[in-house]
Amino acid sequence: MSSLPFSYQPEATDGAARAGIFHTPHGPIPMPIFAPVGTQATVKAVTPRDLTDLGASLILANTYHLYLRPGDDIVREMGGLHHFMGWDGPILTDSGGFQVWSLSAINKIDDDGVTFRSHIDGSLHRLTPERAIGIQQNLGADIIMCFDECASPLDRDYNQKALERTHRWAERCREAWSNRDRQALFGIVQGGIFDDLRQQSARGLVDLDFPGYAIGGLSVGESKPDMYRIIETVTPLLPTDRPRYLMGVGAIDDIIQGVSRGIDMFDCVLPTRLARHGAAMTWQGRLNLNNAVHTRDNRPIDAGCECYTCQHFSRAYLRHLFKSKEILGAILLSLHNLFVLIRLATEMRSAIIEHRFADYAAERLAQIETNQ
Amino acid sequence: MSSLPFSYQPEATDGAARAGIFHTPHGPIPMPIFAPVGTQATVKAVTPRDLTDLGASLILANTYHLYLRPGDDIVREMGGLHHFMGWDGPILTDSGGFQVWSLSAINKIDDDGVTFRSHIDGSLHRLTPERAIGIQQNLGADIIMCFDECASPLDRDYNQKALERTHRWAERCREAWSNRDRQALFGIVQGGIFDDLRQQSARGLVDLDFPGYAIGGLSVGESKPDMYRIIETVTPLLPTDRPRYLMGVGAIDDIIQGVSRGIDMFDCVLPTRLARHGAAMTWQGRLNLNNAVHTRDNRPIDAGCECYTCQHFSRAYLRHLFKSKEILGAILLSLHNLFVLIRLATEMRSAIIEHRFADYAAERLAQIETNQ
Repeated sequence: MSSLPFSYQPEATDGAARAGIFHTPHGPIPMPIFAPVGTQATVKAVTPRDLTDLGASLILANTYHLYLRPGDDIVREMGGLHHFMGWDGPILTDSGGFQVWSLSAINKIDDDGVTFRSHIDGSLHRLTPERAIGIQQNLGADIIMCFDECASPLDRDYNQKALERTHRWAERCREAWSNRDRQALFGIVQGGIFDDLRQQSARGLVDLDFPGYAIGGLSVGESKPDMYRIIETVTPLLPTDRPRYLMGVGAIDDIIQGVSRGIDMFDCVLPTRLARHGAAMTWQGRLNLNNAVHTRDNRPIDAGCECYTCQHFSRAYLRHLFKSKEILGAILLSLHNLFVLIRLATEMRSAIIEHRFADYAAERLAQIETNQ
Repeated sequence: MSSLPFSYQPEATDGAARAGIFHTPHGPIPMPIFAPVGTQATVKAVTPRDLTDLGASLILANTYHLYLRPGDDIVREMGGLHHFMGWDGPILTDSGGFQVWSLSAINKIDDDGVTFRSHIDGSLHRLTPERAIGIQQNLGADIIMCFDECASPLDRDYNQKALERTHRWAERCREAWSNRDRQALFGIVQGGIFDDLRQQSARGLVDLDFPGYAIGGLSVGESKPDMYRIIETVTPLLPTDRPRYLMGVGAIDDIIQGVSRGIDMFDCVLPTRLARHGAAMTWQGRLNLNNAVHTRDNRPIDAGCECYTCQHFSRAYLRHLFKSKEILGAILLSLHNLFVLIRLATEMRSAIIEHRFADYAAERLAQIETNQ
């Protein structure tokens, strides 16, 4: 395997689980990987130097948000997203497709694109596949995504229709993608919870030969068994020499289940969003630091955790910060929650390389189940 | 001079300006010093490790706030303030006197103490000199303050009356102060803008022989010339082998003017409060990052500044963070503003030790005046 930009270098497989490295112009991404989300060009409440300290490799930013504010032209003028947000490592931008459907007021969808109103000021905007790629080229992330049409995962008719449109849009994104030495374009498999639609989507995208493939439209209302079955349906159809990215998934059990079915990449706002609301992620489940039970608890969130927060601060202090509405509460819990998911990915990598992934996964999943 | 806890070790004088070290059980405090304020046992939006990185030595916490929430008994149970907030360096707690007057609804003041309602939930509380010392002993800071009665600086009659009461309370605080090997109790000179009252207050407190002396009740509405004159009136009356602390002052010019008149210590919420509102402190004046003029400005706040923020982020990015209401904006500006005041103190120390303080002060003050 070449170590040039955008090559996937396999290291080990263990069952369906994979360890490998995806090379990008801003450095290697060890996989499996959990990518913190920096929606508005900042991982909320965390500095880039703290992200480095946490061992973060890849981070995400959102095309929809940055297009609306500050504007992708400004980000380009300021030297691109890496320079703008002070992050030298790999960055991935989504296409804006999901946010257009989940955040904006959609005005009109047609075969050419989507017209929508901004969630910030109600102004009218239009995204097409070509425009979504153009914006992502201005932002300058290492990995960019095809513009897709999102559908409720349980609605077969709409998924069928959205799928065909998403496939035509993927072709147009591929055409518009001009700087292939600096940005890798990933295709997004859609099709809801329907195996045959997912297969049709995966086969169509693989024919287009993208540098990587994502599974979209999951973790948005379907059951966990449906999610896991769809992953099992899709991954065997994807080429083994390209990364596979499960979009928007950040629960510990889902990440483990995903890796055990051949997924390499995850992203989610969950760790930082939970943190801002006072919830800590632990191997034993979630801990709500707002609860009065922590008032005089001098223990850290997790006595076995090596993160900065657990090494220096008690539950009593964290509860005090949240009761007092202090920003430091969000900072310290964000550091802890991100540490847990980044550590999870690192541990899974080692387990795969050492061919003990099944045992590792079973142990972690049992821990979670015991405490649910 | 001894290097035991709570000795002031003089290093150099240059005019009235002093360089020295105040030794505490949690380490030496190089003076002059600017102390960041951690009202609720956290310097807002800044982690202790970032404070260390900034070169902070002494930090403040507020007795009034911590007494009300989480409660000084809980802080004591959790191992004291240093352990609770994860700060191993020196800490100073104020007495609660100023906050009782500025934040709470006062119910009754008598010679024995003050009854007031909490600004959090309206509950009724009472502070006496003995109680204020007891709370500060529970919190466990290295430097604690006498409980004083604050008065508007321009009201002579009230200052006269408050002064006598504050002096009697200082005697009672001194009596109640039992752990003299672990906590140093400072007296607070009051008397508004009236030279004779300030002299009376200073002489009375010096007779009580405190390990340090503060000047209170300034920077709360009087003119700058009045503030500077009062400092000039008071400092010559204070013993040279004790630190002098100008409470609540944090503007760059006031700090320089204070040091040039013999002040050693400053604290203020200004740098972190300005930061949360998008204002950066610079040697050339304040910069409001909310302004549209910064939208496409790729320069740092201050090209000559060595802080983390100026080394990595542009004005355009900081403006984007504030427009997007991102916590990282408050974090990065707090780091910058604190860096500026801590750097100011360090520079003044060097200038005093090298006997070039007058030139240094004149240059910095001219910079500020030019830009006002």
